[in-house]
Amino acid sequence: MAVLPLALQDLINELGKLPGVGPRTAERYAYSLLKRSPDVSKSIARSLTGLHDGVKYCPKTFALIASDQEISLLYSDPMRDKKQVAVVEEPLDVVAIEKTGQFRGTYHVLGGTLSPIDGIGPEQLRVTELVARIDEDGVSEIILATNASVEGESTALYIQKQIEQDGLSITRLARGLPVGVDLEYADQITISKALEGRQSL
Amino acid sequence: MAVLPLALQDLINELGKLPGVGPRTAERYAYSLLKRSPDVSKSIARSLTGLHDGVKYCPKTFALIASDQEISLLYSDPMRDKKQVAVVEEPLDVVAIEKTGQFRGTYHVLGGTLSPIDGIGPEQLRVTELVARIDEDGVSEIILATNASVEGESTALYIQKQIEQDGLSITRLARGLPVGVDLEYADQITISKALEGRQSL
Repeated sequence: MAVLPLALQDLINELGKLPGVGPRTAERYAYSLLKRSPDVSKSIARSLTGLHDGVKYCPKTFALIASDQEISLLYSDPMRDKKQVAVVEEPLDVVAIEKTGQFRGTYHVLGGTLSPIDGIGPEQLRVTELVARIDEDGVSEIILATNASVEGESTALYIQKQIEQDGLSITRLARGLPVGVDLEYADQITISKALEGRQSL
Repeated sequence: MAVLPLALQDLINELGKLPGVGPRTAERYAYSLLKRSPDVSKSIARSLTGLHDGVKYCPKTFALIASDQEISLLYSDPMRDKKQVAVVEEPLDVVAIEKTGQFRGTYHVLGGTLSPIDGIGPEQLRVTELVARIDEDGVSEIILATNASVEGESTALYIQKQIEQDGLSITRLARGLPVGVDLEYADQITISKALEGRQSL
């Protein structure tokens, strides 16, 4: 016999599709929505329904843009330097870099990392498009801003080999101690990288 | 300038309404949905929209039931012993007890605990209804199955005082070591309760 009413059990199952959400968390989400006004659930439902129709990929940078946009505003903006391109793995990485307010170049979203185990080879990433951009926009610096993971590093290495040419500076985000972290708690590899990349004062 | 398209930012804001979901988790949920088929988002949306219309409270036990049901099946089922009533705080507690498969009585959902700080007094809980049930159904045992928290304990104590009468046995779920937990890791109060409630072999 079903202990919970179908409409509630249904929602628990549906919310279990979110990444990292198990049955207990899904129960907590669903029950908290049930206790609140139906307007809250309906408003979340509206956003879910409109998600895919409202979003597309920028044909130039492959960042996420609104469907009624031609091209990413972070590219078309005349204040952004098209000769400097930060290459990132995922669209949300753009948000992370933009939050610093320190970067005035443009972005190129790969759409993932090389991962032979998941069947993701170079042709699944937007590398050809990156090579084309370097020519078209006369790019002078590529910042390889992939994650500091094994996949991120090997993807950066692969791209570096594809784009190496005279007059193009290729850089990688610095490795080192995260701000606020005590030396004694940092892992060995991070400390090694921080030593390698030490800067003169 | 908005870095993310409105439809995505909208969904991130909406998912942030779920309990314990901060902006980073909401971003991860929304982006994972964006990468999957629109059908997944739309199916979650449908469940959200149907939630409140599909669920109501049982007028007898205050458990959650389907809107087209008269009364909780856990009450109307002739196999369930109406003379034994487990009093719980929230509807999901019913699910937790049912999962044991050990309880053949019926339930009474209080709808919370006494919490003067949140303005929840006895009149917000279904205590009057419990007192009425004891008479109507000739209840012989009330199991106070509220949480082992300060609020749960004081609510149990309050209810005990309201319902005390000849011929009615009032019990409380046992306190003790959770199964699988080492003595050395248990807290002092749990060990005290386990000592108090020790059973002869």
